[in-house]
Amino acid sequence: MEFKEELKKYQNIVEKELQKYIRDKSCPESKLNESMEYSLISGGKRLRPILILATYRLFRKDIEKCMPYAVAIEMIHNFSLIHDDLPAIDNDNYRHGKLTNHKKFNESTAILAGDGLMNYAYIVISEDLKNTTSKEELETKLKVFNEFTKAVDRMIAGEYVDTEFEGKPISSDYLEYMHKNKTGALIRLCVRMGAILGNASEKQLQDLTTYAEKIGLAFQIKDDILSEIGDELITGKPVGNDRAKNKCTYVTKYGLEEAKSILNKITEESLEVIKEHEENGEFLKELALYIKNRNK
Amino acid sequence: MEFKEELKKYQNIVEKELQKYIRDKSCPESKLNESMEYSLISGGKRLRPILILATYRLFRKDIEKCMPYAVAIEMIHNFSLIHDDLPAIDNDNYRHGKLTNHKKFNESTAILAGDGLMNYAYIVISEDLKNTTSKEELETKLKVFNEFTKAVDRMIAGEYVDTEFEGKPISSDYLEYMHKNKTGALIRLCVRMGAILGNASEKQLQDLTTYAEKIGLAFQIKDDILSEIGDELITGKPVGNDRAKNKCTYVTKYGLEEAKSILNKITEESLEVIKEHEENGEFLKELALYIKNRNK
Repeated sequence: MEFKEELKKYQNIVEKELQKYIRDKSCPESKLNESMEYSLISGGKRLRPILILATYRLFRKDIEKCMPYAVAIEMIHNFSLIHDDLPAIDNDNYRHGKLTNHKKFNESTAILAGDGLMNYAYIVISEDLKNTTSKEELETKLKVFNEFTKAVDRMIAGEYVDTEFEGKPISSDYLEYMHKNKTGALIRLCVRMGAILGNASEKQLQDLTTYAEKIGLAFQIKDDILSEIGDELITGKPVGNDRAKNKCTYVTKYGLEEAKSILNKITEESLEVIKEHEENGEFLKELALYIKNRNK
Repeated sequence: MEFKEELKKYQNIVEKELQKYIRDKSCPESKLNESMEYSLISGGKRLRPILILATYRLFRKDIEKCMPYAVAIEMIHNFSLIHDDLPAIDNDNYRHGKLTNHKKFNESTAILAGDGLMNYAYIVISEDLKNTTSKEELETKLKVFNEFTKAVDRMIAGEYVDTEFEGKPISSDYLEYMHKNKTGALIRLCVRMGAILGNASEKQLQDLTTYAEKIGLAFQIKDDILSEIGDELITGKPVGNDRAKNKCTYVTKYGLEEAKSILNKITEESLEVIKEHEENGEFLKELALYIKNRNK
């Protein structure tokens, strides 16, 4: 199957699964539920859940086992977008070419919708754990749940560092720390969840973790580049957004050309590390290239 | 032991336990950790963790088993206070007689500190689950974890309804729905967690749940009354706060005298329902009276 086709297939699986988690609209908090849905079902690349599924597929075919974690991570991702977009944080008006949550609804609803989505992720995980009968499988999933909570913690810390250093000079160590946590932690988690749930060997888990760390950083650098020179009709976000906000990014720190060159280098490295997984690893390799070459 | 003495003893146990969860201050996100600590270690009555411990003590003595859940619930409670106090929601400047989180730090830090505390609660739970070796115990704890996530969901929904109806006329059904979710769900959860972890019988669990629902409502009505006629030097919050904000409360809906009379009635009912647990239930009875009679 062509990469684009396979990517689309995965995206459809995720979209269909997310539909199952749409909430009641006849209760007093119907508008809150609508607001959570607005963000969760708003499109987006679904990169994180796809990373879980595709990594798991290296080892096993029964991807239903990963589904609750794929859904949960997309809920976490969307909670973080809603809160990051808030006036007190990034003050963004558009996301995926649509109004941000607090612009569409209002600020208090957006704060609570973010809270609700984070907690919804844990509802989904707890339901799955409660329904797991095999002792061995439960043990694996408890490990996954634990890594999940810690990655979310890192994501929040990274976002904090991002706000803290807005408009201030920042060392390259801090810039890397920020990206490693803010974007990297969740991407790393997704690949690791897929590998752990798929019963990968220690060596495989290690290689895939390195791969994930590379593409996580690549993803963020590409985001930084798109914020500088992307087509806002395609990205759905205003061009020059980071610069206008005095954000410290790979582009503002190293310049555009150097940022592109770092992006190329770490993408190469990510491909190198999964070379051994030749047989089923084609999709993950293509995904690394897709992250580098995407225009949104 | 006198009730006040026992209450103090429980409070000390909780304070001491919370100290174990203070975070690193030498990392780039040190200020975020400081902000989370500011709210978590800020005093407060510690009613929720105490309810878990005291209910558990009806059945068993080894309260260490409850500790992670007692800590987690206090983290959730404090996350909700931080977010509720935000300018976009209740816009409060003081809490427990101290500046609210966003006033002490800033709004973006407060949003992320709330997020961080909610997630920290799930870190604590996941650590405990991962370290539980007995199959039977794990099953019980997974049930508790599941109830936990759902109660937090209800709390967020209740808070949403509160914001949605600010300044609007509200039916008594909606008022009860709001309180049942916003404050009631977590208090109910605490008592149920104590009972479930303590291996209560079905009948005991049912009675204690009813007790919890009654004191949860009583707690909120008393809060409404204190907001109207409390001593702000004692409550740490400005008097007339709810009324000034056009909040719908038991006092604004029914008037002060009727609110007091409802409070008395449901406190009596809460005592009635745990009458059978005469032997060890003394503390819970005193606690119901304390909730009714407190001045902060």
